[in-house]
Amino acid sequence: MSPVTDLPPPERQPPDRLLLGPGPSPVHPRVLAAQARGLTGHLDPWFAEAVDEVAAMLRVVLRTANPLTFAVSGTGSAGVETAVVNLVEPGDTVIVGVNGVFGGRLADMARRAGAQVVTLEQPWGRVIPPEQVEQAVREHPEARFVALVHAETSTGAHQPLRDVGELLAATDTLLVVDSVTGLAGVPLETDAWHLDVVVSGTQKCLSVPPGLAPITFGPRAEAVLAARTTPVASWYLDVSAVRRYWGAERAYHHTAPISALLGLHEGLRLVLEEGLESRWARHAEVGRLFQEHLGDRDAVLLAEDGHRLPQLTAFAWPEHVDEGALRRRLLTEHGIEVGGGLGAFAGQAWRVGLMGEGATHANVDRLLDAVDELLEG
Amino acid sequence: MSPVTDLPPPERQPPDRLLLGPGPSPVHPRVLAAQARGLTGHLDPWFAEAVDEVAAMLRVVLRTANPLTFAVSGTGSAGVETAVVNLVEPGDTVIVGVNGVFGGRLADMARRAGAQVVTLEQPWGRVIPPEQVEQAVREHPEARFVALVHAETSTGAHQPLRDVGELLAATDTLLVVDSVTGLAGVPLETDAWHLDVVVSGTQKCLSVPPGLAPITFGPRAEAVLAARTTPVASWYLDVSAVRRYWGAERAYHHTAPISALLGLHEGLRLVLEEGLESRWARHAEVGRLFQEHLGDRDAVLLAEDGHRLPQLTAFAWPEHVDEGALRRRLLTEHGIEVGGGLGAFAGQAWRVGLMGEGATHANVDRLLDAVDELLEG
Repeated sequence: MSPVTDLPPPERQPPDRLLLGPGPSPVHPRVLAAQARGLTGHLDPWFAEAVDEVAAMLRVVLRTANPLTFAVSGTGSAGVETAVVNLVEPGDTVIVGVNGVFGGRLADMARRAGAQVVTLEQPWGRVIPPEQVEQAVREHPEARFVALVHAETSTGAHQPLRDVGELLAATDTLLVVDSVTGLAGVPLETDAWHLDVVVSGTQKCLSVPPGLAPITFGPRAEAVLAARTTPVASWYLDVSAVRRYWGAERAYHHTAPISALLGLHEGLRLVLEEGLESRWARHAEVGRLFQEHLGDRDAVLLAEDGHRLPQLTAFAWPEHVDEGALRRRLLTEHGIEVGGGLGAFAGQAWRVGLMGEGATHANVDRLLDAVDELLEG
Repeated sequence: MSPVTDLPPPERQPPDRLLLGPGPSPVHPRVLAAQARGLTGHLDPWFAEAVDEVAAMLRVVLRTANPLTFAVSGTGSAGVETAVVNLVEPGDTVIVGVNGVFGGRLADMARRAGAQVVTLEQPWGRVIPPEQVEQAVREHPEARFVALVHAETSTGAHQPLRDVGELLAATDTLLVVDSVTGLAGVPLETDAWHLDVVVSGTQKCLSVPPGLAPITFGPRAEAVLAARTTPVASWYLDVSAVRRYWGAERAYHHTAPISALLGLHEGLRLVLEEGLESRWARHAEVGRLFQEHLGDRDAVLLAEDGHRLPQLTAFAWPEHVDEGALRRRLLTEHGIEVGGGLGAFAGQAWRVGLMGEGATHANVDRLLDAVDELLEG
């Protein structure tokens, strides 16, 4: 080992960025400050109270009374995998709506967990109609769950859940919802809509840095967990053990990510200060405004009309626009991040997130002004 | 939902704690400040450079040239599980040294991954002798790997690795090392000792908050990954996908925990500024001093003589001492956290960590003074 390579690189000071991509979203200074507080132990009585408050605030934001509500010690994808590996036993049938990247990812996770996966396919940008779910459950009454992506971050499609929830509540099949990009940005009613499991991430409409995944399991999901006859394939994500830390027992499983949880605590406080319904309304208004202005620029929205997320807009530029070059200049010359298209939409589309702290009229103006300047220049 | 429950709790200001338990260890203010910096996107070219620097610094600290060196987006246990689930295919034989909680945990993870687990047992506090490994590998030449815990956090035992590394290098069986509590506290030479996979955590001798798990895979381990014929059971921990983010391709897999990685970047800079060998020497000196002083207080060290970690000391108090009451008073009256015993040692033992920023003469004095005052009071 040469001594030269042992010298540390200089301190890293991030450039100033306005984060209007598909996540992470802009983080409030109060959340950043909370992450810089001194640590206590993860079993400290003081920290236990903070963790209980995080769970209580998550219940408010998820609109649920479910006792089994906590944050997985990983990013949103780890949360989705937690739902899948805890509910699936090898050989189980599961039904997964696939109309974008994240439905496909969920199906992949379920296959790895040993499930027989029935996919409900729709073209990218469309949602899964309740009738398609109804028919699949009629054909596969043995299915352990139906999984749907509430907010498809690859397309901007906004999946309706209420009818599917009612439909499945009358069967033995659970409804699992990936709301990584949905939570706190559009209405979501875990209990009222009969959603058995809901998973989210922190770095979208909650405006907290990535690293934790809020999750809740309702009574029917708890019964499935209790009835398992095989061990959960993952030790780290095994809810039967993790819940003993998040419960009164406060038993050691793994060391909780302390700074990240303090950041989430402060981020949830901000959501509750604003009020959940006000936050939904703000996202709806700002997103609608942006999408209207896009129409004036000959951009084509990729999600079908009537099922568009306000907080995440995927759209295709007219053919003469070099989206990659435009996106890079937007970042380097204006300090604004937006996302490129995923999968079939790569090279044609942008994904713009107006999520959490990012969902403001001022940000819409700043983004459109910068884009107009670059397009004209 | 009652409106009362929607009110946020007050802001959380952690009490001042001196963290001398089994982790987390005290965090340098520079690391906390790094976690409070504004975010860039996880695909931002600026962040890509920061991530490359993290990997480069991890190679220095792990003493390796392995290209496949990165930080898992989860705590130390997620890192250990990453090693296990990526190397094991169902039906594989693996050999696991079990002389404390963390060897047992590793065996559990391997069983969940479908392995046939051969355990090498030793009483808690002892290490696994190389001859025991040698015999097991002779009996099970088909074993995919031998896994040993470098620093058993439940007992304070310091597992020798060099002889085992040489022994296994001449076979087809890999050596997997759980060095969650070892890395940067005691010597560890990934390449020189022929360690095929080494996993660690951030919240021990690196003195960075919990949430990331450094890991490295050597060429023989890479060959095993490449030869897999079944998918890795975990999508989130699948190295074949995660490595595409940590490599030049910078492909999206999951959203990297940005703030935590910026904290790790600064923490690794501090380690390199001190120098790895100086850091080992500091841990050795401070830990030895503490263990000497413990002898004066009739405490019995649990790890066998000659195989004691300096950074983590497990010891039993004389029978007349109520360890639980003493520990609680130490926390509430002196603001010092130490750990209780795990498993067989619960209710009799303490675990004291003098790790990273915590490994100072002043902390030894402060701890012993406080304990003496409480014992006399």
